[in-house]
Amino acid sequence: MSKFWSPAVRELTPYVPGEQPRERLIKLNTNENPYPPASGVGTVLRDYPVDHLRLYPDSESRALRDALAADLGVERKHVFVGNGSDEVLALAFQTFFCQARPLEMPAISYSFYPVYCKLYGVERRTHPLDSQWCVDLDAFSADAGGIIFANPNAPTGHGHGRDAIAGLLERAKESVVLIDEAYVDFGGESAVPLMARFPNLLVTGTFSKSRSLAGLRLGYAVGSQELIEGLERVKNSFNSYPVDSLASAVAIASLDDVEHFEACREAVITTRERTRTRLEKLGFQVLPSQANFILVNHPQFDAAQLFLGLRERGILVRHFNTDVLRDYLRITIGTDDEMDSLVETLELLCG
Amino acid sequence: MSKFWSPAVRELTPYVPGEQPRERLIKLNTNENPYPPASGVGTVLRDYPVDHLRLYPDSESRALRDALAADLGVERKHVFVGNGSDEVLALAFQTFFCQARPLEMPAISYSFYPVYCKLYGVERRTHPLDSQWCVDLDAFSADAGGIIFANPNAPTGHGHGRDAIAGLLERAKESVVLIDEAYVDFGGESAVPLMARFPNLLVTGTFSKSRSLAGLRLGYAVGSQELIEGLERVKNSFNSYPVDSLASAVAIASLDDVEHFEACREAVITTRERTRTRLEKLGFQVLPSQANFILVNHPQFDAAQLFLGLRERGILVRHFNTDVLRDYLRITIGTDDEMDSLVETLELLCG
Repeated sequence: MSKFWSPAVRELTPYVPGEQPRERLIKLNTNENPYPPASGVGTVLRDYPVDHLRLYPDSESRALRDALAADLGVERKHVFVGNGSDEVLALAFQTFFCQARPLEMPAISYSFYPVYCKLYGVERRTHPLDSQWCVDLDAFSADAGGIIFANPNAPTGHGHGRDAIAGLLERAKESVVLIDEAYVDFGGESAVPLMARFPNLLVTGTFSKSRSLAGLRLGYAVGSQELIEGLERVKNSFNSYPVDSLASAVAIASLDDVEHFEACREAVITTRERTRTRLEKLGFQVLPSQANFILVNHPQFDAAQLFLGLRERGILVRHFNTDVLRDYLRITIGTDDEMDSLVETLELLCG
Repeated sequence: MSKFWSPAVRELTPYVPGEQPRERLIKLNTNENPYPPASGVGTVLRDYPVDHLRLYPDSESRALRDALAADLGVERKHVFVGNGSDEVLALAFQTFFCQARPLEMPAISYSFYPVYCKLYGVERRTHPLDSQWCVDLDAFSADAGGIIFANPNAPTGHGHGRDAIAGLLERAKESVVLIDEAYVDFGGESAVPLMARFPNLLVTGTFSKSRSLAGLRLGYAVGSQELIEGLERVKNSFNSYPVDSLASAVAIASLDDVEHFEACREAVITTRERTRTRLEKLGFQVLPSQANFILVNHPQFDAAQLFLGLRERGILVRHFNTDVLRDYLRITIGTDDEMDSLVETLELLCG
């Protein structure tokens, strides 16, 4: 605490990211992709015209937005890009959610949302998940100051289909509804095609998960032109050039390789279902997941103890020490080999 | 304007960066370095282990902060890094300047500061430059809510020496004094060595100018541990991993090549002084500059007309259409060849 800090900063409890170990561990704690990025990424780096780095990037990131727009089947004017979807989300909070009415969100979702509320002085109203641990879409008010959740949700992995999302958008049509699709490529149904019908829809996405580019910090948003223009306005008051030239070139190469993208996400899905079956045989309850992680608990074993037992044996998973989640572990889907090690170690710990 | 935007966003006038042309022009409008980055940068990109990009970056950017700390002669705990010094500045506004008392700044300095005030609802109080167009250090209040200016200042190019800055820090010791040293390597005197004596000093810097890495988006701050901790706290509520892995590796390679750094900044200084002499011969008044740009005016010729005349002939410079600056042009220092073209074109236009 320092007398030099702004009053609101003294109250902040910053988001704590999953740890980034420097030793060699099996790392199933931060939802990274176990597969490398597209091979074109290496080519881009090898051939990059280094002299170009002396110039500022295109402040409008036109080339990257064009590539994304083509991939998503929309026009460039509907696409916004930023330095990680965390930045895109933070700018969305500033652009849309600094409202008199509270922002509504599920009691369990990406834990960064409450942190942004605190940072930007946004009042929030949370709704419990339903009995199946799904986001309760009916709970959101028609006149919310805004609505935000991840779909598929984190850390549960459940995703609502497009029709259900359309129903919410129709009902809350005066509120910006932000659907965070960080995990959608692992089996979810994207809301992007609803954009044409609903000017209040903002979908965010990231290159960190299904595109194996977490190290690059690239996120995006898709929405109506008025929403994208609002984001641009705030971005240009904050940092005019958030996406660097190298990151942009790498991301474009990634979008270019559809085959690699499909192969990696299918591999993750296959391994997820295989792991799920094996863990269920060990007596775990595994929530159905459309993401690159699973949320599991074991009726006989304490999750915190399992977390520590795995960690001692070189396997990092995520344990959230909150009332609702303390009996659960969130496990990122790695390679088959990594998941085999996980299952074998859990066999030992639960044997 | 959209009904979905937060009330404050409707009032925003975003910063407008200098244009990034896509045709081949002589680009002397955004203070980029005319020389390429260090040759080690190419090596880093060629040899980069692409698979590493699937992992999140180190959220504490330890390797880069260590390299910067070594370069600046401080410890890692005194160094903060971010996605461009624009981001670092924005986080500093949130961390320190959201205070009841107004933030004080010169009437003329980096034009992003008033934009941040608007974005974060910070009241500001401006002081005119002195008769020599220098920042008037005596004008700042001892009990300001904070003080910010660029040193050397932009777009004037004048820099105060370390002793003068120390006097201000001593007098305003209850206020955070942010010295933006984006241009210091072109002849200014850095305030970094004062950090040990003044816990209220925050110095920001960038890799965009003297290190020829504007395309990379890397900025930093140096200050007492309590100021750096405050910045980390806000950063971790905004975007935990703003510096990507590639950018970090490239920046470290740049810091490693002292010889290239010295050669480039000396070349810019030499070209600046040569250009100054030649422009004075054409009747221009050229403010003395310690930066990689000069601010010039001509008693007989209209600056806006000269701007357009240059532009028609393929040379971009910057013209600020404000009351105080409308008679001036800000000209970035390019290569000798580029500056020869500039001078020759101005000879034509003012002949």
